[in-house]
Amino acid sequence: MMNTPLLMTQMLERAEKYFSKKQVISRTEGGIHRFTYKEMAARTRSLASCLKELGVEKGDRVGTLAWNHHRHLEAYFAVPCSGAVLHTINIRLAPQQIAYIINHAEDKVLLIDSDLLPLIHAIKDELQTVKAFIIMTDNETLPETDLTPIYHYEKLLEQGNPIFQFEPGLDENDPAGMCYTSATTGNPKGVVYTHRGIVLHSMALGLADSAALSEKDVAMPIVPMFHVNAWGLPFAGVWFGTTQVLPGPYFTPKLIAELIQSEKVTISAGVPTIWLGLLKEMEENQYDLSSLRGLICGGSAAPKGMIKAFEQKYNIPFMHAYGMTETSPIVLVSTLKSYQQELPEEEIYELKSKQGVLVPCLEIKVMGAEGEVNPDGKEMGELLIRGPWIASEYYKDERSQDAFRDGWLYTGDVATIDEEGFVKIVDRTKDLIKSGGEWISSVDLENALMAHEAVFEAAVIAVPHEQWQERPVACVVLKEAFKNMVSKEELVEFIAPQFAKWWLPDDIIFMEDIPKTSVGKFLKRELREQVTQELSKK
Amino acid sequence: MMNTPLLMTQMLERAEKYFSKKQVISRTEGGIHRFTYKEMAARTRSLASCLKELGVEKGDRVGTLAWNHHRHLEAYFAVPCSGAVLHTINIRLAPQQIAYIINHAEDKVLLIDSDLLPLIHAIKDELQTVKAFIIMTDNETLPETDLTPIYHYEKLLEQGNPIFQFEPGLDENDPAGMCYTSATTGNPKGVVYTHRGIVLHSMALGLADSAALSEKDVAMPIVPMFHVNAWGLPFAGVWFGTTQVLPGPYFTPKLIAELIQSEKVTISAGVPTIWLGLLKEMEENQYDLSSLRGLICGGSAAPKGMIKAFEQKYNIPFMHAYGMTETSPIVLVSTLKSYQQELPEEEIYELKSKQGVLVPCLEIKVMGAEGEVNPDGKEMGELLIRGPWIASEYYKDERSQDAFRDGWLYTGDVATIDEEGFVKIVDRTKDLIKSGGEWISSVDLENALMAHEAVFEAAVIAVPHEQWQERPVACVVLKEAFKNMVSKEELVEFIAPQFAKWWLPDDIIFMEDIPKTSVGKFLKRELREQVTQELSKK
Repeated sequence: MMNTPLLMTQMLERAEKYFSKKQVISRTEGGIHRFTYKEMAARTRSLASCLKELGVEKGDRVGTLAWNHHRHLEAYFAVPCSGAVLHTINIRLAPQQIAYIINHAEDKVLLIDSDLLPLIHAIKDELQTVKAFIIMTDNETLPETDLTPIYHYEKLLEQGNPIFQFEPGLDENDPAGMCYTSATTGNPKGVVYTHRGIVLHSMALGLADSAALSEKDVAMPIVPMFHVNAWGLPFAGVWFGTTQVLPGPYFTPKLIAELIQSEKVTISAGVPTIWLGLLKEMEENQYDLSSLRGLICGGSAAPKGMIKAFEQKYNIPFMHAYGMTETSPIVLVSTLKSYQQELPEEEIYELKSKQGVLVPCLEIKVMGAEGEVNPDGKEMGELLIRGPWIASEYYKDERSQDAFRDGWLYTGDVATIDEEGFVKIVDRTKDLIKSGGEWISSVDLENALMAHEAVFEAAVIAVPHEQWQERPVACVVLKEAFKNMVSKEELVEFIAPQFAKWWLPDDIIFMEDIPKTSVGKFLKRELREQVTQELSKK
Repeated sequence: MMNTPLLMTQMLERAEKYFSKKQVISRTEGGIHRFTYKEMAARTRSLASCLKELGVEKGDRVGTLAWNHHRHLEAYFAVPCSGAVLHTINIRLAPQQIAYIINHAEDKVLLIDSDLLPLIHAIKDELQTVKAFIIMTDNETLPETDLTPIYHYEKLLEQGNPIFQFEPGLDENDPAGMCYTSATTGNPKGVVYTHRGIVLHSMALGLADSAALSEKDVAMPIVPMFHVNAWGLPFAGVWFGTTQVLPGPYFTPKLIAELIQSEKVTISAGVPTIWLGLLKEMEENQYDLSSLRGLICGGSAAPKGMIKAFEQKYNIPFMHAYGMTETSPIVLVSTLKSYQQELPEEEIYELKSKQGVLVPCLEIKVMGAEGEVNPDGKEMGELLIRGPWIASEYYKDERSQDAFRDGWLYTGDVATIDEEGFVKIVDRTKDLIKSGGEWISSVDLENALMAHEAVFEAAVIAVPHEQWQERPVACVVLKEAFKNMVSKEELVEFIAPQFAKWWLPDDIIFMEDIPKTSVGKFLKRELREQVTQELSKK
């Protein structure tokens, strides 16, 4: 066979040649922006030529601080197709973390949304490697700033070459992108994506049994483009000629519902919090969202009640998935098998609330204390992954040796696997509750609690216990309409039938809010400290 | 990213682990045979262990002479997963060609269907490298033979190890399979497939916009497993957990229709001759073929009338595709774009009768006399292809330099490409008719003729002409019911509105039969000699 490499340049060229009329729709500060892949490709080539003029060379890192919009999409291709590395910066990190990752990645150029400029102003004196700042804005003039040298994205592009030829001689293992993931302790850790990884991951998104992304789709990634490449949808979307809707900086449930309705979105992707919000919005206001053929949900476990509500009440198929920054991210998708579609309703939703079955090209193991666990859906172990779109290390980081061992990624996620290959994430290794030598899954308890109509969010944590080492305690946020209407006992009674007695939480603490990470996951470490302190006061 | 290779071992392991209950259904001499992927995987491992016992080492070639059935499927995985090379032998080649390719490939072991043994008996004295013959049969006893050493496939497997561990340390660029393609002159030419090529090609078959092969499918490859790996369906089918129906040695239109009906086949693949036969069968007898979601058609151009009949009369979606032995084979698939679905009926069928749009991962060029042709759907040029599942050479063959140049495969097919990227194969370079310095497409004329209700088959060839160098002459086989009912003039009049006057055939010759190659393509060289001779007698 020919020794032709798997490169992102081919992905862009396919859209340019064969899907030149298809559209990308963005909501920016200026309103709705539409253009075709033909225009997008020409602007992407212009941007690539400008980066070259600015001194960006093969292997250099170019950082972006940007929402989901067409200019960010141009950077998604212009940077790697030039042979440079697209470093998408998580804008929700703390300022000192943003400074750390820009310096650690040694970003040479930064592309910044004008409304996110304050994030850079706050740390500008700490930046050691940045040689140019490019501001992305719809406005003619730049906001006031003392960053230098500074460029206006649109004015720069006017100088560019729309038929610029991309870097020849790229290798499929050359780096194409990078993204930092926050660590429990210490600075964020960097993951580098290669052309090969991105091409293969994009193919996986197009498979009929995973996301089945197609030219016929109108895909809207709500998951930010600064978070694991918006789960790879923008890459695959360009390759397949998919119409893309990029929601920009504002994505309240109302704005999301409106965009789905007006642009006839067929597939969207986001974390459970996004979908919980949309569900609430749909319950309160009328929308026609019948164009949707699937909502992809990852980042953390989707509560069964939410999945049911979308599918049964609104006839919107729900696709539970699993991945992480280290895995590009798609690893598992909860696609039911043909013969599972006839199962009783409860069993179907039991399956759909699992994260799903392994996608092709990857391998997994669920490792218990004594080797691989039985595939019985009960025995718990740590999930290990390997494959061509799984990171092999953290970028220049000593912590690599904890997570990457013997050729496998140790995810730190505790899982079960059943005889059909359905994997269920039951906890983080560090969040598992070890009570009297046995393991209790905090996630199982949380999901059970969240199935109660009064519960908006629930986080279950381990608190120290003299006799049992640890015991579960639940922190619960009630829906507005149910505040002060539900008792602890009622909630415990509600979940009791599903669990052994010793699994039930010792206490339930009602809260206004559960502390979360920058990507919307429960900050359990903080919660545990807070609750342990409160309980010790009692 | 991890440096994990793309290997066929992972494809089998996925079926074994996650789709162990899914079935493979074969029709063999003994009747319908059913087993699960769990059983298939265990038997495949047994076969691999037996091959090792017989002395098959990494890189050795193992030949198969077999129809589409479960044992052949086992060999499809056992051989490459052992690190050896699966050489599928085209049973329709002439005996001396079969001897040539077995010797040229240096097959060490042959797996032979018992009813195909006579093919080997005829050439046994010429075989220089074969060390063992394994007979695949449902019968307890072997047919009479003086081949030696000879093994009974089932009895051999009883000695095998069903938990045999496959060759570790395979490289994704290691050879996995090979197939010889017949040449216009001289011996067949060998194409070697790699693990990487097969894995990537299988992914392409699963993409929503190509064949969308899925676990939910019941796939029946009618195209033989000795012809470009049955277009890759058996490989992809195992990987995706697809139910597979393998029709065995008998595939008359009636038997095909019955299998589709009884096994609820959703997708099938074959050459136009197969589908013309099925259409005729459906017109004569009643079947419920409503389970079908797609018929893939390749090998040669599908007549528009046939596509229309399947889609309009029977509501069976028709998927025109293009590829060749050198291309694994999928290159083009005629998937309409979202906005093309609203086109007027005639334009839709004009598009569907083109071979379609390039699948991801590949690149094409259509090269005219002065560089790439205009994408206007009219200008003709030779189709060039490159990509990771395209051959880079013929196996140990000097003829490589004709077809493989500057990193591209020169297909010898003449094509047009339109602004939407739809490619239409209009001829073989050597079958083009050059009349007065202009090109006439024999395939266009053939398709126009075949749209006439009386025409069963039509082949248009160039005959020498004093003034114009060459002129087109059509050879036509009429349907039984129309024999002697239609005149030459009527047929010419029928197609006249579609062509410039100088394109119309100078003569139409009615025949009982058009000579064909072993894979059902018109033998135009022979036809040309025959017709030129006949015309010179007039």
